[in-house]
Amino acid sequence: MLTTTDPRTASVSETGIEPTTPAEVARVVDAATAAFDTQRWSSREARAALLDALADGLEADRAALVEIADRETGLGEGRLNGELSRSQFQFRLFADAVREGGYLEAAIDHAGETPIGPGPELRRMLVPIGPIAVFGSSNFPFAFSVAGGDTASALAGGNAVVLKAHSSHPLTSQRSFAALERAALAAGAPAGLLGIVYGTQSGRDLVSDPRITAVGFTGSLGAGQALVDLINQREQPIPFYGELSSVNPLVITPGAAEARAEAIADGLFGSFTLGAGQFCTKPGIAFVPRGAGDAIVDGLAQRAAAASGQVLLNSRIATSFGEIRDRLVGAGGAEAAAGVVADDATGFEAAPTVLTIDASAFTPALAEEAFGPLIVVARYDSIDEVVAALAAVPDSLTATVHGEPDETELVASLTRSLLPLAGRIVYNGYPTGVRVSWAQHHGGGWPATNSQHTSVGVTAMRRFLRPVAFQDAPEGVLPTELRDDFTGVPRRVDGVLELPA
Amino acid sequence: MLTTTDPRTASVSETGIEPTTPAEVARVVDAATAAFDTQRWSSREARAALLDALADGLEADRAALVEIADRETGLGEGRLNGELSRSQFQFRLFADAVREGGYLEAAIDHAGETPIGPGPELRRMLVPIGPIAVFGSSNFPFAFSVAGGDTASALAGGNAVVLKAHSSHPLTSQRSFAALERAALAAGAPAGLLGIVYGTQSGRDLVSDPRITAVGFTGSLGAGQALVDLINQREQPIPFYGELSSVNPLVITPGAAEARAEAIADGLFGSFTLGAGQFCTKPGIAFVPRGAGDAIVDGLAQRAAAASGQVLLNSRIATSFGEIRDRLVGAGGAEAAAGVVADDATGFEAAPTVLTIDASAFTPALAEEAFGPLIVVARYDSIDEVVAALAAVPDSLTATVHGEPDETELVASLTRSLLPLAGRIVYNGYPTGVRVSWAQHHGGGWPATNSQHTSVGVTAMRRFLRPVAFQDAPEGVLPTELRDDFTGVPRRVDGVLELPA
Repeated sequence: MLTTTDPRTASVSETGIEPTTPAEVARVVDAATAAFDTQRWSSREARAALLDALADGLEADRAALVEIADRETGLGEGRLNGELSRSQFQFRLFADAVREGGYLEAAIDHAGETPIGPGPELRRMLVPIGPIAVFGSSNFPFAFSVAGGDTASALAGGNAVVLKAHSSHPLTSQRSFAALERAALAAGAPAGLLGIVYGTQSGRDLVSDPRITAVGFTGSLGAGQALVDLINQREQPIPFYGELSSVNPLVITPGAAEARAEAIADGLFGSFTLGAGQFCTKPGIAFVPRGAGDAIVDGLAQRAAAASGQVLLNSRIATSFGEIRDRLVGAGGAEAAAGVVADDATGFEAAPTVLTIDASAFTPALAEEAFGPLIVVARYDSIDEVVAALAAVPDSLTATVHGEPDETELVASLTRSLLPLAGRIVYNGYPTGVRVSWAQHHGGGWPATNSQHTSVGVTAMRRFLRPVAFQDAPEGVLPTELRDDFTGVPRRVDGVLELPA
Repeated sequence: MLTTTDPRTASVSETGIEPTTPAEVARVVDAATAAFDTQRWSSREARAALLDALADGLEADRAALVEIADRETGLGEGRLNGELSRSQFQFRLFADAVREGGYLEAAIDHAGETPIGPGPELRRMLVPIGPIAVFGSSNFPFAFSVAGGDTASALAGGNAVVLKAHSSHPLTSQRSFAALERAALAAGAPAGLLGIVYGTQSGRDLVSDPRITAVGFTGSLGAGQALVDLINQREQPIPFYGELSSVNPLVITPGAAEARAEAIADGLFGSFTLGAGQFCTKPGIAFVPRGAGDAIVDGLAQRAAAASGQVLLNSRIATSFGEIRDRLVGAGGAEAAAGVVADDATGFEAAPTVLTIDASAFTPALAEEAFGPLIVVARYDSIDEVVAALAAVPDSLTATVHGEPDETELVASLTRSLLPLAGRIVYNGYPTGVRVSWAQHHGGGWPATNSQHTSVGVTAMRRFLRPVAFQDAPEGVLPTELRDDFTGVPRRVDGVLELPA
């Protein structure tokens, strides 16, 4: 039987949930496949209404969901209430996008002469791809788990979803799933459109099932790589949309250090300790100038020294955090300050920690992601040292620059250095806190993600869609959005983009 | 030294081209990487002008290119002149798309309150990804080779391209590359933006080079799978956009057979023998009703029996064609008719061949792609037999339906059966002849392709782009297209799509 652990006390209890057997996994995928065969022909309005219903379903069970999640994650009720609201907002934003219809990329080329001869009529749009496997992450038990963005974007596209419950919050997963499933059935969705499996082996069985058409995953590089290896053994390859590891470099210019040392120390400390440092966008490496930047380092160190321990999500993360901190120290990181874990702490606590290094001595070993409240501060004398050190930093979800208005050329130059390494460039702010919106992009080169797609924001839907073109089709067989008399979505007609009427 | 073979005579001659050594491959990628570091910051106008210049460069060398290609492929000057025009049109269409700018997917969310709190400003667009490896195919020495759509779409996005010359037309590749390189340099492109390598091992070295960021490939399933295996061994995975194998099922309804038997026999024969049947979109399996469809089968058989042999591209294809034809016969295909290869034929000739089978006895072995002028005609008594047989047909680039206006429900039902299996559904026409346009889609599930992207048409650019978001950026660092006062491209502003002013 699966167990669950209270990270504040390390006490383990039984969940009543058995690991899903291979035969049961196959039955869940059977049901998802059958449901998809209905859902793939559903209207955009039906899909949007389903997403709204799922948001409502989460709200209806808010109190219990937050209570259970707090017990399993130690993230606190304030944060978890906010995260549940974020999950709901996400479902509703995708509903808006489905109703708006731009995501279909509808295009019509009428038949006619072209410079290379007569061309047939073509009508193209995006359609869903099938049952999607979604692996929840430990650090966002709502927004990146059962009720998270992968689920919302896959369903928005018209797909079925089979969830792999995270072992770190099985009861939250179970309760979230029950709320969603209840709401989906009440909204008229086909039975089996949402499924869930439990246990490590069930996840392996899921990605190996030939009917699964894509995998959404947020988690560790090791676990992600293991799934990729399984996918590579499939007869029919499928896309793996993994968000795995990110150190999120941040650069403070001399001007910014001079102008705003105290504010930056405050903001940066808040960012790298937010959620006990367990954000995929946590700034893990900060480049701080010598001299003007001393006050920033002092400010970070004072805050760390005064901080008490923070509860990590589970024993694996806690153990790993200590090991990686030791490796970073061994690789040349000097401890500037660390917080204090109470003597009587019984749970998975970590001390907020600031390590300092010389930017000129930066090595790839110093760019290892420490999942938890730790930041490596690299001190530099010249921007050239920063640029050289960035070559040792793996691709990341984000990169951040703090600069002043009179440093225009320096900020532009840093942008050119950072843009190849990251999917989002943040200015005079902090990368934690990923806005869910139309223009968001949450992705980066491997190992941040391995795709050219986002896992946050409206365009996340594109991961779970494929184009289809209809050539010289009788109007009766065309999807509504591709018929001549329909003007309800943006369409590109004979190469010219047209807005809805 | 590499050799080249005239497929009409099987005579082999030396090319003067040596296989590219691993060290030379690395130098070509060095140069492409350096060129990309310049080109990634180039303007859309500069990229569009480059594409137009490449089209002009091909035209300037038309006569020699066609002559060399004809000697290496046997495809004939008429076809090759048309294909060269198609290649040029492709470059110009991408230039149009680059100037129009919709492909950037530009989006701006202004800072402001959201239902879940204050949100920062975000500005997103697509940017190029790096040096792309492009493997040309044997069957389109211009349009899917050095001067083909992968090259055009990768360059349109602002990337560098390193070509792997096809062993079946090395001199055409060399001459095409020279024309493109000369035009690119004259247009001011950085040296090394286009590179080329020769020989099988050079292709392996190319996809294994850590600086290559994506692979475009059109070719056999075996060769594609070998490249995928190499990619899976890379530390940093990269997308493989492969177009590999497609049988392109075609269904004739009873009504269509009754109304248009002679026209269908004529069109279908022309389609499966076009280019000696060496089209990725060749209709390989036709479902024809018994009774009304007899005239179609007779018409195909008569045309095949009267046909002379067709020249195949190379000895591997010719050998493979014979082997697969024998396997299809062994799997239950009865020869309805085959054309005649002249007694004195010395080259790689194949006889246009019609095989017939019972749809009710259809097996996956009968759905093997025969690259060459061969069609399997499956005779059916009821549409249920067709639907059952389609389960044994692999995913394809296309699927085709011939039906009559009074068969609305049947055509709609066949569409529902075929849409999951193909990227393009053709009605009352033939799948060969892929229009290069905005609404085209050329892709399908594995093994047709392994991606959710197209390799023909404007949206092919999306394969070689990635999103970037700028958060709270000073205007000076933003790309022109994301600045507030720019209105030259379609943009989504606060969720609302806006047309260029």
